[in-house]
Amino acid sequence: MASRQTVAFLGPVTSYTHQATMSAFGPDHDLVPVTTIKDVFETVQKGDASYGVVPFENSTHGPVTFTLAGLADRDGAYAALSVCGEVYLAVHHFLLGRADKESLSSSSPSQTSKEDGVPLTSLSHIKRIYSHPQAFGQTTAFVRKYFGTSPPEMIDTSSTSRAAELAAADESGTSAAISSALAAETTGLDVLARCIEDRPDNTTRFFVLTTQPSGAPTPLKQSQLPALASPKSLVSFTVPHRSPGALADVLDCFRRAGLNLTSINSLPSLIRPFQYLFFVEFEHGDEEKTAKTDAVDGTRTDTPHERVQRVLGEVAKLAQTYRLLGTWNKPESL
Amino acid sequence: MASRQTVAFLGPVTSYTHQATMSAFGPDHDLVPVTTIKDVFETVQKGDASYGVVPFENSTHGPVTFTLAGLADRDGAYAALSVCGEVYLAVHHFLLGRADKESLSSSSPSQTSKEDGVPLTSLSHIKRIYSHPQAFGQTTAFVRKYFGTSPPEMIDTSSTSRAAELAAADESGTSAAISSALAAETTGLDVLARCIEDRPDNTTRFFVLTTQPSGAPTPLKQSQLPALASPKSLVSFTVPHRSPGALADVLDCFRRAGLNLTSINSLPSLIRPFQYLFFVEFEHGDEEKTAKTDAVDGTRTDTPHERVQRVLGEVAKLAQTYRLLGTWNKPESL
Repeated sequence: MASRQTVAFLGPVTSYTHQATMSAFGPDHDLVPVTTIKDVFETVQKGDASYGVVPFENSTHGPVTFTLAGLADRDGAYAALSVCGEVYLAVHHFLLGRADKESLSSSSPSQTSKEDGVPLTSLSHIKRIYSHPQAFGQTTAFVRKYFGTSPPEMIDTSSTSRAAELAAADESGTSAAISSALAAETTGLDVLARCIEDRPDNTTRFFVLTTQPSGAPTPLKQSQLPALASPKSLVSFTVPHRSPGALADVLDCFRRAGLNLTSINSLPSLIRPFQYLFFVEFEHGDEEKTAKTDAVDGTRTDTPHERVQRVLGEVAKLAQTYRLLGTWNKPESL
Repeated sequence: MASRQTVAFLGPVTSYTHQATMSAFGPDHDLVPVTTIKDVFETVQKGDASYGVVPFENSTHGPVTFTLAGLADRDGAYAALSVCGEVYLAVHHFLLGRADKESLSSSSPSQTSKEDGVPLTSLSHIKRIYSHPQAFGQTTAFVRKYFGTSPPEMIDTSSTSRAAELAAADESGTSAAISSALAAETTGLDVLARCIEDRPDNTTRFFVLTTQPSGAPTPLKQSQLPALASPKSLVSFTVPHRSPGALADVLDCFRRAGLNLTSINSLPSLIRPFQYLFFVEFEHGDEEKTAKTDAVDGTRTDTPHERVQRVLGEVAKLAQTYRLLGTWNKPESL
């Protein structure tokens, strides 16, 4: 049996990234929290961890800029890194704080346990709410509805776990945090409202980073599927500055090959102001379904693998800079 | 003479948005700080201000998600708003704090005044740095270089102005802030290092919002140019879900017409998880230079205005949802 492998994740413990990491890696891995997204990239690049887990995008609030910045690798510091997997986590935000004692005792637990998205107690004593900007962005409807007339002070924190710590440290009991159910357990804060996210299908997608060669087996659950049964790839590229249609030319390569784009993002390239580095993620298509033999002349069209190689060759020619950031299997349920 | 108009901007006073607003509007306007980017949108939509100024993107760190979310207008709350102008501001970040007395007295002001991007005093007493996540993202090289071996605690704040207030409130003198030169004046903090941004061309671009009809004269300096002498437009759209090439089809409309795209961004559409709303900004082209008469048969090709109308019609047909978010003149110097 192989020795235990280390997986670095964006901490602290109880963070959503921690939950995603636990769901993707079994108990025979050492999961190590690090402080920032950049720390995850650096820890894996240096070889201090075999894998790293970072949030990539949220279905409500969009891409995570610091992860895009790491993948952009504008300093060339992460040349050995690639994406070897993705993890989806349903995100439920809880409002945590010190309950107003009178208000809490008037409702029995059984009465409130089903009520998602509504206060379980009076919130009139809450003077400030700590949370990460992404979590604030995912709970605006609840805050507007229940704090509309006298909004509390909203204070940004570096993580939702940190928000819960700060709320717990306020002995006046007038601070709350938008954080996870797990953080209620670790801090001892009361749950003032559960599942306050704007969208019931609020989901965050995480990437797993590694320095292993592309296609190498990973301990991720989706890697147990037949090798690259339903692969996806992520590429980054820049296009010549101020060339009308250069981006459209590159995307046209994917379109002509019938490849399905699953995300597109952009970040300043830093080569010159407001020139962009683009990220395109796409599905290769199903090997069996899409390799066809022409009915008339019997010639066989290319396989998904051949087609992807051809498209990537075309992209590399059109783009100013180009990098294949990884190829991995989709999780089974998607 | 018209009565004084109100301009709402993302505060607090001394923020970079405040500086951009001052540079774009003359002294005969009432400039009113509001707390969040959402507040700017709401204040203008309600008619409590004639104009609103919000940061849109930074050349180092990328788009400002909360402004994209406002422009996405997924609740239909800002139906009357459009973009009527843009403002560019060179952004210089300063490290502010309490100077180490001994270290400061050993260097004369004349000696240090030219040194951008290097500490003007010892930084060994700094235990924590407050700043906005965007500003942290724009000063990583300085922090890595001068705090590399014993990095201080990095604490996210809601604005760089707030960061300076928090550093000023710490009487131990061990807190610093990454903030503006203006904030040094208002808080009385010492300048520990000036111009610590990673890129000397670090620029933030701001949008001016209004409920005035598109093309109406504005008090912005670039509006004093001949009407729409060098126009740009911003559109948002969604494409049919999982339709391979749908985005490429839309971008192809711009490419075929030879329109230069100046930015592309995306945000989850909230119609379904990980479906995107795209933002495309483009230049119309110069009216005189690009209206041509064919040398052979004497037919005149369409003017930039006609061409843009045709392209927008094509985009509206291909897209699932579509909105023209505004048309304005580029500032003269660009």
